[in-house]
Amino acid sequence: MIKQYLLSPGPTTVPERVMLRMAAPMIHHRTPQFSAIFAETREMLKQVHQTTQDVLMLASSGSGAMEASMVNFCSPGDTIIYVNGGKFGERWGKIAGKHGVTAVEISVPWGQAVAVTDVEAALNAHPDARGVFVQASETSTTTEHPIREIAALTRDRENCITVVDAITALGVIDMPMDDWNLDVVISGSQKAFMLPPGLATIAVSSKAWKLAESAACSTFYFDLKTERKNQQAGKDTTAWTPAASLVIGLNEVLKMMFEEGLNHLFARHKLLAEATRAGVAALGMKLVSSTPASSATGAFIPEEVDGAAFVKYLRDTMGVTFAGGQDDLKGRILRIAHLGYYDVFDIVIAMSAIEIALNRFGYPVQMGAGVAAAQQVLAERFDKV
Amino acid sequence: MIKQYLLSPGPTTVPERVMLRMAAPMIHHRTPQFSAIFAETREMLKQVHQTTQDVLMLASSGSGAMEASMVNFCSPGDTIIYVNGGKFGERWGKIAGKHGVTAVEISVPWGQAVAVTDVEAALNAHPDARGVFVQASETSTTTEHPIREIAALTRDRENCITVVDAITALGVIDMPMDDWNLDVVISGSQKAFMLPPGLATIAVSSKAWKLAESAACSTFYFDLKTERKNQQAGKDTTAWTPAASLVIGLNEVLKMMFEEGLNHLFARHKLLAEATRAGVAALGMKLVSSTPASSATGAFIPEEVDGAAFVKYLRDTMGVTFAGGQDDLKGRILRIAHLGYYDVFDIVIAMSAIEIALNRFGYPVQMGAGVAAAQQVLAERFDKV
Repeated sequence: MIKQYLLSPGPTTVPERVMLRMAAPMIHHRTPQFSAIFAETREMLKQVHQTTQDVLMLASSGSGAMEASMVNFCSPGDTIIYVNGGKFGERWGKIAGKHGVTAVEISVPWGQAVAVTDVEAALNAHPDARGVFVQASETSTTTEHPIREIAALTRDRENCITVVDAITALGVIDMPMDDWNLDVVISGSQKAFMLPPGLATIAVSSKAWKLAESAACSTFYFDLKTERKNQQAGKDTTAWTPAASLVIGLNEVLKMMFEEGLNHLFARHKLLAEATRAGVAALGMKLVSSTPASSATGAFIPEEVDGAAFVKYLRDTMGVTFAGGQDDLKGRILRIAHLGYYDVFDIVIAMSAIEIALNRFGYPVQMGAGVAAAQQVLAERFDKV
Repeated sequence: MIKQYLLSPGPTTVPERVMLRMAAPMIHHRTPQFSAIFAETREMLKQVHQTTQDVLMLASSGSGAMEASMVNFCSPGDTIIYVNGGKFGERWGKIAGKHGVTAVEISVPWGQAVAVTDVEAALNAHPDARGVFVQASETSTTTEHPIREIAALTRDRENCITVVDAITALGVIDMPMDDWNLDVVISGSQKAFMLPPGLATIAVSSKAWKLAESAACSTFYFDLKTERKNQQAGKDTTAWTPAASLVIGLNEVLKMMFEEGLNHLFARHKLLAEATRAGVAALGMKLVSSTPASSATGAFIPEEVDGAAFVKYLRDTMGVTFAGGQDDLKGRILRIAHLGYYDVFDIVIAMSAIEIALNRFGYPVQMGAGVAAAQQVLAERFDKV
């Protein structure tokens, strides 16, 4: 009997009450019963986005929403600017390539945030750019990009929007869509929304809808204008069959988020991230990112240790599933998630598992050092008596 | 307390053991653990399709698979032929329109099957057509189209494929993909696969893959060549994050199907359809279709009865959810499903509910007449003692 722990940055653990809610008998999605759930979910989604504008749900993974966030606002031949500082940033260029959109890359070393001045320079060099595409949190390097500052640059440019992949940021950090002038914000179900994968969300500003009027990229399934007509208040349905069980699960998840309170939710994620960073530092592991995310912490595995075997050992022998690295970082880093249904003792488990695994791999580690450092930070979660 | 019954042609009831399997804790989709489930599911899917060719899974509803079935095999400016005999047939034309594909419509009166000679004439008139797009079962009219005969027409045409929307046919009727030379076959999770919506499948023949090489429609998320590389045996993963809980549910569903046996599965659906037709006939209700499907039975609601109110009464007062009609058939028909997790007493409930509702609406009906006629047929499901 090896007890299993899911500590990867997506999928994340699904809370018991959400699993139970989704295990209830199916209901039909073209009924007032489902529409009531759908409408309530949509309104709660708006609150998480801190927006009064449209938030749509799509039956796809986050990659589908990434495509939707480009094809609905661009035409073939248009120019966009994108930040490539990791696996997900790179993807904007690939999507653009598939649709004949010219993608101007701002290449950023993995683990670093994009410099706002570089975005400004790109905008000045390409005044016709339809948008800047960026990750709020680049999951492959556990790095936050300065989306607020980027959105400030596009705000006064008439036909240019800021498109944010917030798949591992929404519900983690405070990123008020309307206050910050974010135009398109996408997310996915299997991250801070604590659900199985297969549902994506996309929020769209009125400025972005204006661009949509003249966008001529080809899509049928991801046509947001059609979705908007169906998903609007009063209609409360979807253009195509929704991922109904996940929408119902999302309804439950959002209720949990509001029971906790958004400010508390953001503070919890921040604290768990700080504790994790303190823990890995105490073990002598260096951070991958110079502007680390609150969703997950990437840390270099000691060079003496076979990184791929280390992650596999943690998962298959110890029952603790972390994520490893991708591409250049493959076999070199460990990504420790702390987004969604995570609290104090998940971080304790994470640090404990890393220490034990390092010990088993023959790496000199002081047992309990990482746990202790994390606990110093985590203790704040509890009142003194 | 009103007990609820879901008797609509999608979503259909999810079996208890499948709900339980999907309610288990999430596992990560980029692990050998998930890949083993994925590979087993893929191989079972091939058996349901009766093919040795590729069957891919997509995180989308069936509409996404419909788009995938066109954009991967066509280029803008190409011509295709499509059968429009209902809501879903009509959709082929809409998808083509979004991608600049010229769509030649074969218009068929709702409730009728397309004439094979009309397809042949269209193929002769458009020898450059890349494919014929057709529903195996047009759900909006509960009508079967002669897909085997259509595929025989395209078999020897070098650059022309038969694309079949089998969303309410796969797992219902015997439609061997390889024997019948079907080139592309799509399905969705919430029909005979007895799952919540959000997962689609698409099977692709080697002939279709050849066309894919020169297809230039734009898509990123639905790029099947990328999916094929990832989903092939040995890799056993997906290009984008899969709808993991539904894939796991599908694994369980397919095991149930093989425990029953495919021949038995097809025979059961055929018998339930016959019983339903006998039942509605005994109540004097006429069938919508002249070539009725085995997945669902469409029957005209007596003209004296307010059809929309009738369907609503059944759902909200009696707890029995059927589907009504769409477009021209709105308020005029009832669609009684019998695909997936349905057996003898589901049909008994359906007939009983219709009789009671007709009675409540003041329509003269002999109580038990429909049930009795259905039972005459259904009795065959049980051995004599």
